[in-house]
Amino acid sequence: MGHVFQFLKKSKKSKARVSRLKTAHGVVNLPNFMPIATRAAVKNLTSEELEEIGSEIILSNTYHLFLRPGVEIIKGAGGLHQFMNWPGPILTDSGGYQIFSLSKWRKIKAEGVEFSSMLDGKKFLLTPEKAIEIQKDLGSDIMMALDVCPAGKGSYEEIKKAGETTTAWAKRANKVKKGTGQMLFGIVQGGIYPDLREKSAREITSCGFDGYALGGFFVGEEEKNSWPAIKKTISFLPPLKPRYLMGAGKPEQILKAVKEGVDLFDCVIPTRNARHGLLYVFKNNQQIKGKFYEEVHITNSKYAGDFRPLDKHCHCYTCQKFTRAYLRHLFMSQEVLALRLATIHNLYFYLSLMRRIRENIKSGNL
Amino acid sequence: MGHVFQFLKKSKKSKARVSRLKTAHGVVNLPNFMPIATRAAVKNLTSEELEEIGSEIILSNTYHLFLRPGVEIIKGAGGLHQFMNWPGPILTDSGGYQIFSLSKWRKIKAEGVEFSSMLDGKKFLLTPEKAIEIQKDLGSDIMMALDVCPAGKGSYEEIKKAGETTTAWAKRANKVKKGTGQMLFGIVQGGIYPDLREKSAREITSCGFDGYALGGFFVGEEEKNSWPAIKKTISFLPPLKPRYLMGAGKPEQILKAVKEGVDLFDCVIPTRNARHGLLYVFKNNQQIKGKFYEEVHITNSKYAGDFRPLDKHCHCYTCQKFTRAYLRHLFMSQEVLALRLATIHNLYFYLSLMRRIRENIKSGNL
Repeated sequence: MGHVFQFLKKSKKSKARVSRLKTAHGVVNLPNFMPIATRAAVKNLTSEELEEIGSEIILSNTYHLFLRPGVEIIKGAGGLHQFMNWPGPILTDSGGYQIFSLSKWRKIKAEGVEFSSMLDGKKFLLTPEKAIEIQKDLGSDIMMALDVCPAGKGSYEEIKKAGETTTAWAKRANKVKKGTGQMLFGIVQGGIYPDLREKSAREITSCGFDGYALGGFFVGEEEKNSWPAIKKTISFLPPLKPRYLMGAGKPEQILKAVKEGVDLFDCVIPTRNARHGLLYVFKNNQQIKGKFYEEVHITNSKYAGDFRPLDKHCHCYTCQKFTRAYLRHLFMSQEVLALRLATIHNLYFYLSLMRRIRENIKSGNL
Repeated sequence: MGHVFQFLKKSKKSKARVSRLKTAHGVVNLPNFMPIATRAAVKNLTSEELEEIGSEIILSNTYHLFLRPGVEIIKGAGGLHQFMNWPGPILTDSGGYQIFSLSKWRKIKAEGVEFSSMLDGKKFLLTPEKAIEIQKDLGSDIMMALDVCPAGKGSYEEIKKAGETTTAWAKRANKVKKGTGQMLFGIVQGGIYPDLREKSAREITSCGFDGYALGGFFVGEEEKNSWPAIKKTISFLPPLKPRYLMGAGKPEQILKAVKEGVDLFDCVIPTRNARHGLLYVFKNNQQIKGKFYEEVHITNSKYAGDFRPLDKHCHCYTCQKFTRAYLRHLFMSQEVLALRLATIHNLYFYLSLMRRIRENIKSGNL
C-alpha cells in the first residue's frame, strides 16, 4: 500500500514535510486539516460549501453514527458518502474516544469495551473487530483502530495499562479484512511518558498500518508535557506513512506539530469558536510565523457600524459578501445564519493556513 | 405611478388576476409570496439561496430592525439591500403589527403609538410620519403606512376606533415625501364587520396609495368570518393597484384569496413549519385544486430508512441532493443543517405554488 502515500518534500529547516495521500475518494494534500462532521454533517454546512471552502477530507464520528441513525441505515443508503452527499475522502474514528469521553458508564475488558449509550443508556460491547466492521459498513476511506484513550492526567500505571490494551486491540483490528480501497490507521498511546510512548510506537508500527495516529494528546495533560511526548512518538514512526495528531488544535499548535513532522489534524476549535462568534483573521497575507493571526470577537460593540469585511484579504463567501456590522447584527439577533457564515470563515482560515503551510514548506520557508 | 403596476390577465372563472409590479429593485410577478426576513435575514438562508428558490420579493420587519441593529446602522450600510446583501425588491411593514403583538406595553394616542422595546423595555413613540422616515432610511421598495391592528376578537367599538385612527394616520403618512423609487401601501382595517371594512376601504383608497393591504385578518378571529370581510374589502379596492393580504397563509388560504383577487402574500407558516420538520409535498405535478398537497412530518420513524427524495418531482436543492432518511437523521440529531434544508424546500413549495397559480390563471384553469 506504499503507493497511496506519496512523499513530496522534506523541509531543511524543520521536520515538516509535504506529501499526498491517495484515497478511494480523492487525493489529500498533506499537511491538512479535517473539518468534523460528527453526525454525518459538518455543523451548519452543506457538502458544496465544504468543497468551496477547500476541504479535501472530513472526519465523522463512528460512536455518534452507530447510536443514531445506526449503521444499518447508513449501509442501506450505500455508505456514509452517499448518505451525507459528500463525494470526497472521509476518515472515521473508531468510536473509542467518545466512549471514554461521552458515555456515562463504560467498562474495559480484554475482549473490548462495554458502554452505555449517551442517548438512552442502552448497553453495547465494542470490540476491535466490531469497530472495523462498523467502519467497513460506513465505507470510510480511512478507518481507525480501536484504542483506549485514558485521561491526560491519568497515572503512569493507568496509561501503561491503556497502552498494553491498545496494542492488543490494534493487532486484532489489523487482522480484519478491510473493505476495498479502505486504509486503516493505528493509534499510539502512552500519555506524557517517553518510555510508554516509545513502547507503544514500536508495538503499533510493528503491525504495519497504513498510517499512524498520535492519540492521547490535548486530553487534559499540561501542554508543556505534550510536546516532548509528541516528538518522542514521531521519532519512532516510519517516515513514509502519514501521521495524524488527533484532536489538534489551535492554529499555533498545528504549525508547531507540522514542524515536528505531523501531516494530518482534526479539531472542533474552528467550528466551535465560530459558533461563539470568535473569528480568525490572518495578520498578513503570506507569513506564518510569530503571532500570525488575530482573534476577532465579532459581538464586540466596536463592530456595530463597521462596514468592512471581516478580513479584506480573505476570499471566503462570508468575507466576499458581508460586513462586520452585518455579522455582528446576526449574532446579536441570534440568527442561525450567523453560525453558518462564521463557520465558513473559520474553516476557510484553517484550510488556508494548511495551504500556506504546504507552500511555505515547498518554498523552504518553514 | 400607474405604470408600476401592469395588469396582464383577469380570470374568467374567478376574480383571480395576473399582473406585474415594477419596483426600483426588479419586477415582481403577481400573485406572489414574500419570504419573511424579520431581522434582515430569512431564517437559515442566504440571499443566493433565496434567489435560487425563486424569491422575487422579501419582507422585512421595521419594528425589529428599528430596535436592533437600529436604523442608523442600516442607513450607514447604504440601506437594507446593501446591509443584508439582497439585490431584489423588499417590502417593509410599518412596525405597527409588532408593536401590538410583541411589545408588553403600548399606548395609542392621536399622535402615534407609544411602546416599550421587547429587548430592554426602553420607550419609544412611533408616529405615522416617523414610520415613513424609518422606512425611507431602510430604503425598502414598498413601505407600509402605520395602522392600528386590533385583535381579531376585538369588540365592534374597538375595531371601529382602530379603523378611524388608521385612516387619520394613513392621511398623515401619505403626506410624507417618499424616497426615490419607493412605493407606499395603505392598510384597510375593520375586522370582520362589513360596514367597517367598507368605511375603511373607502377612506384608505381615497388617499391614492400605490397599493392596498388587507390588515387585521388571521389575527384570532374565526376564519369563517374572515372570508366575507375579505370579499367585502376587495370589492372597494381599485382593480389597477396591487392587493396584499397581510400574514396569509396556509396554501389553501392563499389559493382561496387569489381567487378573490389578492396579489401578494407573506406568512411565517412555510419557514416556521420547516423548522418543526413539517414539509409540504404536492400531490401531483400541475393541478392545484382540492387537497393539492400533503404534509410530511419528517421525524416520523417510517422515514428512517426511506432513501427517496422528499418529493421526486421537486427541483429544490434539498430534493435534488438528499433523502428523507438523511433529512430525518438531521432533525433527530438536532443538526442545524436540517432547518436550512427544510426551509429551502418549504419556500420552494410556496413559490412553486405561486408560479403554478399564475400559470393556471393564464391558461384559464383558475
